[in-house]
Amino acid sequence: MEALVIHAPGDLRTEEIETPALGAGQLQVRVRCGGICGSDLHYYQHGGFGTVRIKEPMVLGHEVAGVIEAVGADVAGFAAGERIAISPSRPCGQCSYCQQGLQNHCLDMRYYGSAMRNPHVQGAFRQQIVVETHQAHRLADSVSDGEGSMAEPLSVALHAVRRAGSLLGKRVLVTGCGPIGALAIIAARRAGAVHIVATDVGSYTLGKALAVGADEVVNVAESPDGLDCFKAGKGSFDVLFEASGNARALVGAFDALRPRGIIVQLGLGGEMTLPINTIVAKEFDLRGAFRFHEEFAMAVELLNKGLVNVKPLISATLSYRDPARAFALAADRSQAMKVILNFD
Amino acid sequence: MEALVIHAPGDLRTEEIETPALGAGQLQVRVRCGGICGSDLHYYQHGGFGTVRIKEPMVLGHEVAGVIEAVGADVAGFAAGERIAISPSRPCGQCSYCQQGLQNHCLDMRYYGSAMRNPHVQGAFRQQIVVETHQAHRLADSVSDGEGSMAEPLSVALHAVRRAGSLLGKRVLVTGCGPIGALAIIAARRAGAVHIVATDVGSYTLGKALAVGADEVVNVAESPDGLDCFKAGKGSFDVLFEASGNARALVGAFDALRPRGIIVQLGLGGEMTLPINTIVAKEFDLRGAFRFHEEFAMAVELLNKGLVNVKPLISATLSYRDPARAFALAADRSQAMKVILNFD
Amino acid sequence: MEALVIHAPGDLRTEEIETPALGAGQLQVRVRCGGICGSDLHYYQHGGFGTVRIKEPMVLGHEVAGVIEAVGADVAGFAAGERIAISPSRPCGQCSYCQQGLQNHCLDMRYYGSAMRNPHVQGAFRQQIVVETHQAHRLADSVSDGEGSMAEPLSVALHAVRRAGSLLGKRVLVTGCGPIGALAIIAARRAGAVHIVATDVGSYTLGKALAVGADEVVNVAESPDGLDCFKAGKGSFDVLFEASGNARALVGAFDALRPRGIIVQLGLGGEMTLPINTIVAKEFDLRGAFRFHEEFAMAVELLNKGLVNVKPLISATLSYRDPARAFALAADRSQAMKVILNFD
Amino acid sequence: MEALVIHAPGDLRTEEIETPALGAGQLQVRVRCGGICGSDLHYYQHGGFGTVRIKEPMVLGHEVAGVIEAVGADVAGFAAGERIAISPSRPCGQCSYCQQGLQNHCLDMRYYGSAMRNPHVQGAFRQQIVVETHQAHRLADSVSDGEGSMAEPLSVALHAVRRAGSLLGKRVLVTGCGPIGALAIIAARRAGAVHIVATDVGSYTLGKALAVGADEVVNVAESPDGLDCFKAGKGSFDVLFEASGNARALVGAFDALRPRGIIVQLGLGGEMTLPINTIVAKEFDLRGAFRFHEEFAMAVELLNKGLVNVKPLISATLSYRDPARAFALAADRSQAMKVILNFD
Repeated sequence: MEALVIHAPGDLRTEEIETPALGAGQLQVRVRCGGICGSDLHYYQHGGFGTVRIKEPMVLGHEVAGVIEAVGADVAGFAAGERIAISPSRPCGQCSYCQQGLQNHCLDMRYYGSAMRNPHVQGAFRQQIVVETHQAHRLADSVSDGEGSMAEPLSVALHAVRRAGSLLGKRVLVTGCGPIGALAIIAARRAGAVHIVATDVGSYTLGKALAVGADEVVNVAESPDGLDCFKAGKGSFDVLFEASGNARALVGAFDALRPRGIIVQLGLGGEMTLPINTIVAKEFDLRGAFRFHEEFAMAVELLNKGLVNVKPLISATLSYRDPARAFALAADRSQAMKVILNFD
Repeated sequence: MEALVIHAPGDLRTEEIETPALGAGQLQVRVRCGGICGSDLHYYQHGGFGTVRIKEPMVLGHEVAGVIEAVGADVAGFAAGERIAISPSRPCGQCSYCQQGLQNHCLDMRYYGSAMRNPHVQGAFRQQIVVETHQAHRLADSVSDGEGSMAEPLSVALHAVRRAGSLLGKRVLVTGCGPIGALAIIAARRAGAVHIVATDVGSYTLGKALAVGADEVVNVAESPDGLDCFKAGKGSFDVLFEASGNARALVGAFDALRPRGIIVQLGLGGEMTLPINTIVAKEFDLRGAFRFHEEFAMAVELLNKGLVNVKPLISATLSYRDPARAFALAADRSQAMKVILNFD
Repeated sequence: MEALVIHAPGDLRTEEIETPALGAGQLQVRVRCGGICGSDLHYYQHGGFGTVRIKEPMVLGHEVAGVIEAVGADVAGFAAGERIAISPSRPCGQCSYCQQGLQNHCLDMRYYGSAMRNPHVQGAFRQQIVVETHQAHRLADSVSDGEGSMAEPLSVALHAVRRAGSLLGKRVLVTGCGPIGALAIIAARRAGAVHIVATDVGSYTLGKALAVGADEVVNVAESPDGLDCFKAGKGSFDVLFEASGNARALVGAFDALRPRGIIVQLGLGGEMTLPINTIVAKEFDLRGAFRFHEEFAMAVELLNKGLVNVKPLISATLSYRDPARAFALAADRSQAMKVILNFD
Repeated sequence: MEALVIHAPGDLRTEEIETPALGAGQLQVRVRCGGICGSDLHYYQHGGFGTVRIKEPMVLGHEVAGVIEAVGADVAGFAAGERIAISPSRPCGQCSYCQQGLQNHCLDMRYYGSAMRNPHVQGAFRQQIVVETHQAHRLADSVSDGEGSMAEPLSVALHAVRRAGSLLGKRVLVTGCGPIGALAIIAARRAGAVHIVATDVGSYTLGKALAVGADEVVNVAESPDGLDCFKAGKGSFDVLFEASGNARALVGAFDALRPRGIIVQLGLGGEMTLPINTIVAKEFDLRGAFRFHEEFAMAVELLNKGLVNVKPLISATLSYRDPARAFALAADRSQAMKVILNFD
């Protein structure tokens, strides 16, 4: 079986790895599609992010869908031949955070393709994988493998939207329209946002923002004052989803955000310098959003029922055998949102 | 100018009344459509409900849309010829509840067509009406007058959904599929509910429930055990919208509602006998929902943008000149949901 | 070793039972004090409550404190001779509710001295008990064994108060001043309630309510209109803790509770007939409160630091050897709040 | 009548100003005590803060208490001779934020002694003042004038605590122990915090933190690693009140704050550079807290009932006639917390 193994920045290899053994209560899955995430790109381009660094070879990937090849002993409710999206999240279930329902803060999380712990947790960009049944979520016939692989980033967006509380009838700003920002638009609309404005610095991504339902877009590179019309009366937006990881995007939205406005920060971006007095005086509520837990099942159900449409965000589906080409495309925000690897 | 005036149970007359004077800051509106609400029916059939009783002749009606005929002095932002939905809610703005943002609990509310206070507040089933600008919400060309008149009951449903908190990814049960229950389905779906089950005792209303987006319906008259499949694991539903006003519907849902489930009670129904030990042991959260405030603007914006579709609920549009016929149809849940009066 | 075993209504025996074996990770505890709870009284007087009935002999008791006699293998952090309060709550940790942090709704709960499941879960009115370390909470020297045994009902009250959200600066009504109502007063005051009014039908309990910090008390048997002065402006109280289990107490408070008022229902009382229209029109929020989870540790810490004082509620400490006398006293609200059994 | 008028940084004069006329519905008050606030100090030392600058002579002061000298026409419920605390907050009541119950974000706020708008709003460091009845809150005999003048900063602290949600049983960290930080300790304890740790860089303020109820204090100047013991398991504190306005204090607390921890930012401090990835990954919730509204009445009621004790924070009471001396003392955190001006 082959897998995509990162050895060092720029050194991503298609390598033969061992086929895992199928245990009781587990599923053996033929991986079909895997989406390239921003963190995969960071490992590929920079060897990691912040203090998280590759210290040993690691299989990348955590956004995957496939078809069940075999079921282990004592498995009920799954059968070979069924197509599934696979949650990459494997919390321990025992620690204090798991017991509070905060599995995304598990003290012993094993998340696919992550160098946060040592030894690293191997990822899912591989032809075959063995998973626990709680990771497996059946896909409807109407949902393609590629869409199924997007259940993971969609879960991230759903989690962010749930962090904001009810959005029904709310006015929403999304800054940064990469895959996560665009999925935040989809999720915010699904949650009842009545008006959604999106900003970015590129026309390609803003076109995608419109394609997935934004009411208006602002290219802040071309129109630095493009949010001025939202500043009257101390600001128009109820909620901001910050998905760029850029301090200028965050701070640039402050005057357009109403007092008591909620900011959900999704984008990672190292240190940011913020005007704390504005946060105090307008009583903003800045909330981090990190990964997901129960939202994975929600994501698959929303996809299965056609209640969300992620198709406009799939830019290309390329073979895993030429990862350099696929990763280069995935890194190019002028022509790609989500790039899917095909493992067949 | 003519209006529909209730004098006593069953005694609803088309009468000539005075045309009001247009004051500064006000709009004179030609009423075009008015929806018959359950409370209008109660006044017509029973002379009121609970302790609220007709004590003097009262113009009925509070769900209306029309076209601006004239604008008073100092009015900005509105012009003759514009089509509007009219909010019947006129809180005082000064009392302690208004100053807390709880205008629906205003100590000096003047709500159209309501006998809650004496003298009664005259209603809007009339050819012409003078309104404050804060009551007027412009309709898009794509929204018919009849749909515009449904902004009011839609506001009630949106308010109820907001009382439940975020519904994104939630499993929802709606008991009672009259106009308010059906609008609760629409609002819950718009707010991101992932699975919606509706119950009623009539096939006509259940058909409408499916038409507006319920995933499943249960005729509890035909299948008293129809909710049994949702009782496993202490219950499946996260949220219940009770719109029947019937204790059996409410209590019958308890076993299907999960611990910490939220019940939003919309239906009025006098006294209800409830198993309080179940509410305690499952830690239900039973919340009343009454009228609306800021949801009226949301309702119109959602209609204007096509984010909700209330057309399947308009059963008939009839002339106001034969109110007996229109009210009889409105009272017949085997063939009518919302009946609209045409005031042209 | 002796224990108090209920065989049938009125048939409570002091019996010899087997001493349990001490396993790894467990503590062997000499029970010193055990408080008689309302549910113990129900088993004793009526053989149970609602559908919960004694079907086999069961050791009663779930409010206990004691001293560690021996520690099992692999136990860290506890030593023989330490005094502890013992949580009677043993959720499974694995089910969907435990994994959501809702351990009080565990699908496989084993709560001391409860006939809710079969075979029944044996209780803690016994001279010796073996517990898991997660059940053990060390008591400060300043806290007596009797006070320690009150950590359990205090946890119930703390849980109820936390169900109400922040109480800082709020006006609170408590109906029913048995041990749980009185502890709700203590907990509400600790949580920052600015004014607390308590009602009951007995002067003894109302005296205790004042002793633990109520600002005012109303004997609704003597002064049925005693809450009228709180009805102006649609009602004065922000929050109601209903601890009587009596529908008249609950409904009688409705006019004194402000719109959007929160009702936390603690009292069990079978069926209650409620004016649902009032709940709707005033948008009350009626929340059940059942047992506790993380509040047990909070209760012990608050006791240890002297931040709450439960001493006024301990009416008597009697030997377990004459249970009939102790239970009779515990059942008499004219002279007893909490009666503590001494197991030495 | 004399008042304290700031003309420029360092130029604070005792000047004769006109006595205002008493209108209908108003109260004429003899000011007795006024507390010097951090913003008063900023005007005095720097001429303002951020973009807020003195552009004309302005009476300072907004923390005052006094005695009613005369009541205007149509005033009910107040009489000459009564002692009151005066709220300096005068929202318009009409704007969209007032109508949402967010009066502290009023679009037309007139807050005493503030250069935020032009012409500036004159302050209350004066011998006589005319106020609206809604600004007047009667003081109990047990509360001194100086304590009464602390109702205002106590309101700020109560508002901050309410921004954090329920604190019952929570573990709280307070960074910065000037008057606002110390009052946050008092308010957090009143709200049920079970353990409160406070940090500062000075021993005098930390002594005061202990005096008002902190369980532990850490001098982070002397023990930069003093919070390390709280870092296990991803952090110990549930809530952080940041009252220093210093980025090092805020960021230094991140490792000691648990995932989903709530940060209430009270301190003003210009720009702060924050590790946004930590906020995201730990899903912190950073909330600004600004002034107050309904908390003023709560503050006075808590003082009147002896439910909070602010006396340890009053360092000195000095005559207004030597403002330089009083302001110098107020600025010296090695020997003063709150300095009160005496206007008799």
